[in-house]
Amino acid sequence: MSVVREISPNVRNMKPLDYEILARRQNLIEKELRQGVRKPFKEVLDVSMSDLQMSGLKPLSFVRQVLAACLYPELLNSNKLPVDVRQRAQRLLGECAGASVGSYTATKGIPEIVQRISEYITRRDGGVPCSPENIFISSGSQWSLLNILKVLLFESSPKRGILVPVPSHVTTTLSIPSLGGVVIPYYLSEEQGWQLQVEELQRALDSAKAWCKPVTLYIINPGNPPGQIQSRKSMQEVIQFVSEKRLFLLADEVYQNLIYGENSEFVSYKRVLGEMGHPLSDTVELASFHSASKGFTAECGLRGGYVELVNVDPAVMKHIYALFSKDSCGPVLGQMALDLALNPPQPGDPSYPLYHTETEHIRKSLLHNIKRVSEILNSLPGFSCQPVQGGSFAYARLFLPPSAIQKAEELGLKPDTYYCVRLLEEAGVLTLPGSEFGQKEGTHHMRFCITTPQERMEEVLRRITNFHTQFMRNVSETEADRV
Amino acid sequence: MSVVREISPNVRNMKPLDYEILARRQNLIEKELRQGVRKPFKEVLDVSMSDLQMSGLKPLSFVRQVLAACLYPELLNSNKLPVDVRQRAQRLLGECAGASVGSYTATKGIPEIVQRISEYITRRDGGVPCSPENIFISSGSQWSLLNILKVLLFESSPKRGILVPVPSHVTTTLSIPSLGGVVIPYYLSEEQGWQLQVEELQRALDSAKAWCKPVTLYIINPGNPPGQIQSRKSMQEVIQFVSEKRLFLLADEVYQNLIYGENSEFVSYKRVLGEMGHPLSDTVELASFHSASKGFTAECGLRGGYVELVNVDPAVMKHIYALFSKDSCGPVLGQMALDLALNPPQPGDPSYPLYHTETEHIRKSLLHNIKRVSEILNSLPGFSCQPVQGGSFAYARLFLPPSAIQKAEELGLKPDTYYCVRLLEEAGVLTLPGSEFGQKEGTHHMRFCITTPQERMEEVLRRITNFHTQFMRNVSETEADRV
Ligand SMILES: Cc1ncc(COP(=O)(O)O)c(C=O)c1O
Ligand SMILES: Cc1ncc(COP(=O)(O)O)c(C=O)c1O
Repeated sequence: MSVVREISPNVRNMKPLDYEILARRQNLIEKELRQGVRKPFKEVLDVSMSDLQMSGLKPLSFVRQVLAACLYPELLNSNKLPVDVRQRAQRLLGECAGASVGSYTATKGIPEIVQRISEYITRRDGGVPCSPENIFISSGSQWSLLNILKVLLFESSPKRGILVPVPSHVTTTLSIPSLGGVVIPYYLSEEQGWQLQVEELQRALDSAKAWCKPVTLYIINPGNPPGQIQSRKSMQEVIQFVSEKRLFLLADEVYQNLIYGENSEFVSYKRVLGEMGHPLSDTVELASFHSASKGFTAECGLRGGYVELVNVDPAVMKHIYALFSKDSCGPVLGQMALDLALNPPQPGDPSYPLYHTETEHIRKSLLHNIKRVSEILNSLPGFSCQPVQGGSFAYARLFLPPSAIQKAEELGLKPDTYYCVRLLEEAGVLTLPGSEFGQKEGTHHMRFCITTPQERMEEVLRRITNFHTQFMRNVSETEADRV
Repeated sequence: MSVVREISPNVRNMKPLDYEILARRQNLIEKELRQGVRKPFKEVLDVSMSDLQMSGLKPLSFVRQVLAACLYPELLNSNKLPVDVRQRAQRLLGECAGASVGSYTATKGIPEIVQRISEYITRRDGGVPCSPENIFISSGSQWSLLNILKVLLFESSPKRGILVPVPSHVTTTLSIPSLGGVVIPYYLSEEQGWQLQVEELQRALDSAKAWCKPVTLYIINPGNPPGQIQSRKSMQEVIQFVSEKRLFLLADEVYQNLIYGENSEFVSYKRVLGEMGHPLSDTVELASFHSASKGFTAECGLRGGYVELVNVDPAVMKHIYALFSKDSCGPVLGQMALDLALNPPQPGDPSYPLYHTETEHIRKSLLHNIKRVSEILNSLPGFSCQPVQGGSFAYARLFLPPSAIQKAEELGLKPDTYYCVRLLEEAGVLTLPGSEFGQKEGTHHMRFCITTPQERMEEVLRRITNFHTQFMRNVSETEADRV
């Protein structure tokens, strides 16, 4: 018997995801393709994640030029790079210890970058003030969120509860039990375009009070998996609600710069809170998260995110500082990517024209994609898809026939996982099932990313259409046979 | 009263470090210098951390060229970069999803890099086999270590104990209580050049059994803060010991490529274990850590490290995988830096001559530094310093006179913190006190990094000498006055 068989129950209780089932099959299929095995497709199209560059969208030249010059300062001597690129790189290098991206930084990040993030926030929020003291940069926003959860959740009796939307981005939910907390699900209303309803928050809270102590509310806006955007009015209601119920508000706002709907506008919780004035604006405790991964910069691989804390007691801030400092610091190039994402070239700068062309190209592709996704999925029997207003994903409802559900059960798979496995194997499209994100009992969904080049989106939709038509036809034949 | 006042006791109990006291004074002094305040020095020399580039050592051109080309692939078209650089970059890009460093990678890291790390380990260990399955890349080795601690330590009764060297690199020790574990200190023998002695491990274990359940032994080799290197014989004894006592062995081997002593050689625990043969080589559970931060590559800011797990039950490996997957992935450029650090250019490669010149320059500087540190510190009354055989630091013993100790107590400071504060304020040298790392009751020490350019080391030693002489003179005058 080995020592580590007796491992932390917190770690032991972490469940593997259905994603793993799909990823394993994907690996197998790709191996077979490399070995020359004939399939109805030449490559797997992976639209399971929000990862613009993996999907084939190009990184922004401005960001890459500045970062390359920071890494290899010889490039500063070449006039191949635009002058504003060289100036930005020079300035960033001057902000690094030893003028090198190879040095550790302060725990909270390079102070000048933190300062510029606070200026971005103030600008974004129409002047609601932001103090750099309240910002922590880390290796991606996921990590910041984990750290804040570590502060709010711990083993206690009754257990501490966190209100989490259903459906919800999965990794967040994963960590909660391992920290000793419990998930209190609240359901987004699919029929109302996945909007959050305060009555539902109230219901979830009431039902939870018997078995846990609710301490915090987690919101994703713009949403993931569904790409809804919350209205200002709804946010005001939520702020009233958390204030009355004394909940800490966690606002995951990483998709704030991916907004598509004509009448949709992103407003941050920080801003709405600030505009609501005293006493709310001085008392409601808020953590807002943002990232270099999500947005047109989309540098997921460089790992840069931040959290801004609002109205948190200074004594607690000290402990949060201590917690972040255990992790040394976020990667310097991720910190810089965040800075460049939030402070892009402005009209008049030498880099602006190219920057503008590149971002407009991405914007147009994404607008095209969500239009096509809506058209096509809503025309297929057995599918329906609420409008995508922001974010990276379409989240479509699947109406699976009883025989497909039965077949899935026979195979020990959840029905939508079964659908996704078959879509992967037969059409070479990797998506994720709704069961991964939570869904209303008896409903089924499929998530796929729409932040991908137009041609790729078209090919994905073509494959889905063909597969789905065939799938439904076979299924109805089976069902007819049975009658 | 706010929700977050009631925060996790694990977070609340984390103690701030004396390092914070010193860092705050450093900031203040640097601000004053910028404002033109006259001081006996023009800049603060920070030798508190192991951060080669912050200290002014240059990054390796090969590494930076490859990474810059990966970030900005336009550079691949320029023949300004050596052909092997371009080949390496092209290959690395081909290993990224979407051929971009901006995509997320697999949880464990880019598979081809993991594969090459396993080949490095096999080569390093004279053929002892290594499976890529057992390797996890993360955002620095510190993070890997934290994850493995999360598996081994948890709230239980009796508490689970970890044997930790005194003195020890501080961040590791910090996390233990917050995970529910307890530190069992074992003392390195300063008189024997800071060697680890198995009798001392036995003593520590025996004394701990009354109040906790020892489950793991943490070793730093080459050491930090003292730069000792463990002998093969001593490692064999340790392996016997952990096998008998059923302890999980954590080998922090991040300084494995910084070796100075003429007769010193680094041997990994993995190798010694492998060479000891059955049954030990199949049963002793080991985690070995390495990093892109420590070594001539020294890319601390890019954040890349790994852990190799040996003899860990496959069922447990699954949980460890789940734990790492919560953190998405390590930064891509940190992963690549790790790859390049472990697989540098070889004789015959176009980049080799420059690579060789640069690394030889660093090597010579460091050899010069440790020679000078030993000469000078051991000639100053009140100082003694064991030979530095490897790693980044000199760890010198300070013999402080009673009046200095009393003065420190009056100020509410630990005696060596007091010394370091005065050294900082009067001579502009930032070092860290032994109290930060743990030390034998009644002894005092000072740690400073020796991985710095020669001229800077000379200036640091000059300042220490002048300050120390003055400090001891004033102190003895005070003491004479009192008589
Ligand atoms: C809602 C949400 N938050 C956070 C993240 C993680 O982002 P980061 O790369 O900054 O850790 C994601 C990634 O998909 C996300 O969807
Ligand atoms: C012994 C030891 N382990 C680990 C680390 C952390 O290294 P990394 O940058 O890979 O997290 C350090 C840093 O100083 C160290 O001294």
